[in-house]
Amino acid sequence: MGVKIGIIGAGSAVFSMRLVADICKTPELAGSVISLMDIDEERLNAVHLLASKIVDEFGSDIKFEKTTDLEETIKDSDFVINTAMVGGHNYLEKARAIGEKYGYYRGIDAQEFNMVSDYYTISNFNQLNFAFNVAKLIEKLSPNAWLIQGANPVFEITTLISREVPIKMIGVCHGHYGAMDIFEKLGLKNENVNWQVAGFNHAIWLNRFEYNGEDAYPLIDRWIKENENKEFKPRDPFNDQLSPAAIDMYKFYGMFPIGDTVRNSSWKYHYNLEEKKKWYGEPWGGADSEIGWKWYQNMLLEVTKIIKDFAKLVLENKNKKLSEIFELALVGNRLEGHFEEEMRKILNPAQLSGEQHIPFINAIVNDKKTKLVLNIMNSGIINEIPGDVAVEVPVMVDKNGIHPEEIYPKLNKRIIKYYLYPRMIRMEMALEAFLTGDIKLLEEFLIRDRRTTSYEQVKNVLRELMELPENKNMKKHYLK
Amino acid sequence: MGVKIGIIGAGSAVFSMRLVADICKTPELAGSVISLMDIDEERLNAVHLLASKIVDEFGSDIKFEKTTDLEETIKDSDFVINTAMVGGHNYLEKARAIGEKYGYYRGIDAQEFNMVSDYYTISNFNQLNFAFNVAKLIEKLSPNAWLIQGANPVFEITTLISREVPIKMIGVCHGHYGAMDIFEKLGLKNENVNWQVAGFNHAIWLNRFEYNGEDAYPLIDRWIKENENKEFKPRDPFNDQLSPAAIDMYKFYGMFPIGDTVRNSSWKYHYNLEEKKKWYGEPWGGADSEIGWKWYQNMLLEVTKIIKDFAKLVLENKNKKLSEIFELALVGNRLEGHFEEEMRKILNPAQLSGEQHIPFINAIVNDKKTKLVLNIMNSGIINEIPGDVAVEVPVMVDKNGIHPEEIYPKLNKRIIKYYLYPRMIRMEMALEAFLTGDIKLLEEFLIRDRRTTSYEQVKNVLRELMELPENKNMKKHYLK
Repeated sequence: MGVKIGIIGAGSAVFSMRLVADICKTPELAGSVISLMDIDEERLNAVHLLASKIVDEFGSDIKFEKTTDLEETIKDSDFVINTAMVGGHNYLEKARAIGEKYGYYRGIDAQEFNMVSDYYTISNFNQLNFAFNVAKLIEKLSPNAWLIQGANPVFEITTLISREVPIKMIGVCHGHYGAMDIFEKLGLKNENVNWQVAGFNHAIWLNRFEYNGEDAYPLIDRWIKENENKEFKPRDPFNDQLSPAAIDMYKFYGMFPIGDTVRNSSWKYHYNLEEKKKWYGEPWGGADSEIGWKWYQNMLLEVTKIIKDFAKLVLENKNKKLSEIFELALVGNRLEGHFEEEMRKILNPAQLSGEQHIPFINAIVNDKKTKLVLNIMNSGIINEIPGDVAVEVPVMVDKNGIHPEEIYPKLNKRIIKYYLYPRMIRMEMALEAFLTGDIKLLEEFLIRDRRTTSYEQVKNVLRELMELPENKNMKKHYLK
Repeated sequence: MGVKIGIIGAGSAVFSMRLVADICKTPELAGSVISLMDIDEERLNAVHLLASKIVDEFGSDIKFEKTTDLEETIKDSDFVINTAMVGGHNYLEKARAIGEKYGYYRGIDAQEFNMVSDYYTISNFNQLNFAFNVAKLIEKLSPNAWLIQGANPVFEITTLISREVPIKMIGVCHGHYGAMDIFEKLGLKNENVNWQVAGFNHAIWLNRFEYNGEDAYPLIDRWIKENENKEFKPRDPFNDQLSPAAIDMYKFYGMFPIGDTVRNSSWKYHYNLEEKKKWYGEPWGGADSEIGWKWYQNMLLEVTKIIKDFAKLVLENKNKKLSEIFELALVGNRLEGHFEEEMRKILNPAQLSGEQHIPFINAIVNDKKTKLVLNIMNSGIINEIPGDVAVEVPVMVDKNGIHPEEIYPKLNKRIIKYYLYPRMIRMEMALEAFLTGDIKLLEEFLIRDRRTTSYEQVKNVLRELMELPENKNMKKHYLK
């Protein structure tokens, strides 16, 4: 059965192409309409062009709308995918620079158990506000639609909207695939691994890990013993699943941190670039160091440029199929490794992207039962975490909705009390600040920051942050 | 009905004299035996002498035992009062100095929401171990006895023993009397105030405050408005119940912090001596600054000396009554203000000390129903706090035991999540460290400390701490 799917922030080309390809490869969704929405018309047009080419390639029955109007994309949608990052990387770096000016290395949003550099929790008024408004528009215009929130901070936004807006929603991420890195490193066949992760978004732990029916943690222990004294050589800044930091966290917490959780560690590994290098590997010191993050930004710029060029090539070869144009580009050496790999995946009819959005939609709409790892309200799934906090847990999805798996073995005390609780407290402060406009909450958040040495510092950094032209609304909200 | 009461750490003269006087003024407890126990025989003898004089003064039917042997005092006791501080102030200051050497202003145990300078949570292996052993000895020797834990850290110890040793126990403190300072300042008659406090030990909040049946918080608000711009002039370092810090906390948390809770604030007020002075008043900057704590230590030394002299005077005037010797001392100008006031209270047959120990015992033994504020396992009393954590709450005590009041209004979200949760997390880490001997927990405690700038610093400060001769057992426990 076909549905209308709205993609907010569709200008993010790789992401949109992945989704469109996934839909094409999901025959049950034939007849669907995809509404591409972005405020950047140039990017939107490029994505529309590429997306149409993907549909042509597969000969799928998929129609497109494109719009810069939020309400238009939400109206009549059955699913609304929000992937928009308000202000983009430009804003992130401006806010980070202000933080660093006042002594907050890597910015005020870099926090214990939340070091991911585009996962802002207190400088992100616009981002929270936008997601909140999307949810309220869904409630008004398409009250039966599902919101699929992919843009960060997924933990904060999923909790906020699930509490405050009576719509159906999930938060999605792909961090749990980090587990595959472990399976691969240990030489395990994925299909023989029985595994679970649980926690919060970017804060998940491998609570279950069995291979051929046996506890497989001893395999990790052996791997660690054999590799601990070898130098850790990451292939890119994000290649950290078996970094010294991950292993050190595992040794303390007793379960393995998965995906972005490895980045979301304590200050022990993040005090400065030197420590970051030691724990996340040379030369970058992980994705969230000044070097690693620059690498990532450069890669994004490069991909953007390549896609622009590629779109031009498509325009110049209107009558050719996408796969043919791809071959042309390859011959002309006009692609970069990362994008080439991405395109191969997109063009491969047998391979889904790994993004969970379309499998989720297909499960709900066409009862195609699927196991996913989603962010939903806890409601008792994880012991000792309040019911009204979003957790990231394995679930089975079908036409009747979302059915969480039983988390077994349970997350242990160290993870619950020493890791998830502090993270949850910061989420609560961020959401209360957002909802009440009480600047004292932002202040208190920073008073508890290890880099703060005076209350003046707190007031000054917040004041300057709110003077950014992008933060006019934030300022009005907090300094009314 | 008389009982046997063991006092561990009875060499603390003022405290023991208070208890003995309270027993004398509680006729229902006639026939009781008090076992005074301390490892310092000189102090023990002096206390025994003074205590006997109090009993003579009131003509009470109370007998004493004195001993340096722990088992002897516990054996056959119906109540064991543990007030012992292992290592005394001497150890506290040694440990603090090591912390300061490594960059931890006021020592590694000075922590957000736990700034009280003799309330150690991680440098106190001996203290926890001693209290734990007392509890286990009670289980073995007097399994029906109650343990009344007065020595700090009451929060940690009450939780530890209530979880691990199957005996009856309570934790006691007098911090809640801080509320009286507020009533007095507002000119309210105590008997017309309907009030409650709730939280953890040294972390309690005035959740209910009514005067003549009306909400009395507006009276505080008015007082603040009228006094906010006047300079705060404390009469001593402990005189902080209406300090700028307390008012600032009230403004953020929405309920008033009571007693030691005012000291147990965030770093905002404690970054350095200057800030402490600003928030807790000149010249000391509160009890927990380097100046305020010195003042307190000097006072303790002075009181010790005065008591020694006073005991000498008692010996020289064997046939005189205590009240007569007191008059002699007054004439000879041989008392200091604080002790003089203390002695007047002790000698006043109509006035109890305010310590909760004896009223508790009388309620249990003789069904003398009493309202107290005690530390007991939560078991649902405070919403959202786990059941197996000790809370400090108002209770009614009678021969059937302890009956917690309903906490109404409930503690609000800010207090629960932003104040009690972080405090609870540190308690959990301290107890797990103590129980497992895993030094990683002490390390993790400090990695989260705002004064830590490297993992080396953490390892070094802990290593040097464990090299103290007093910490031989601690070292064995953690570095096995």
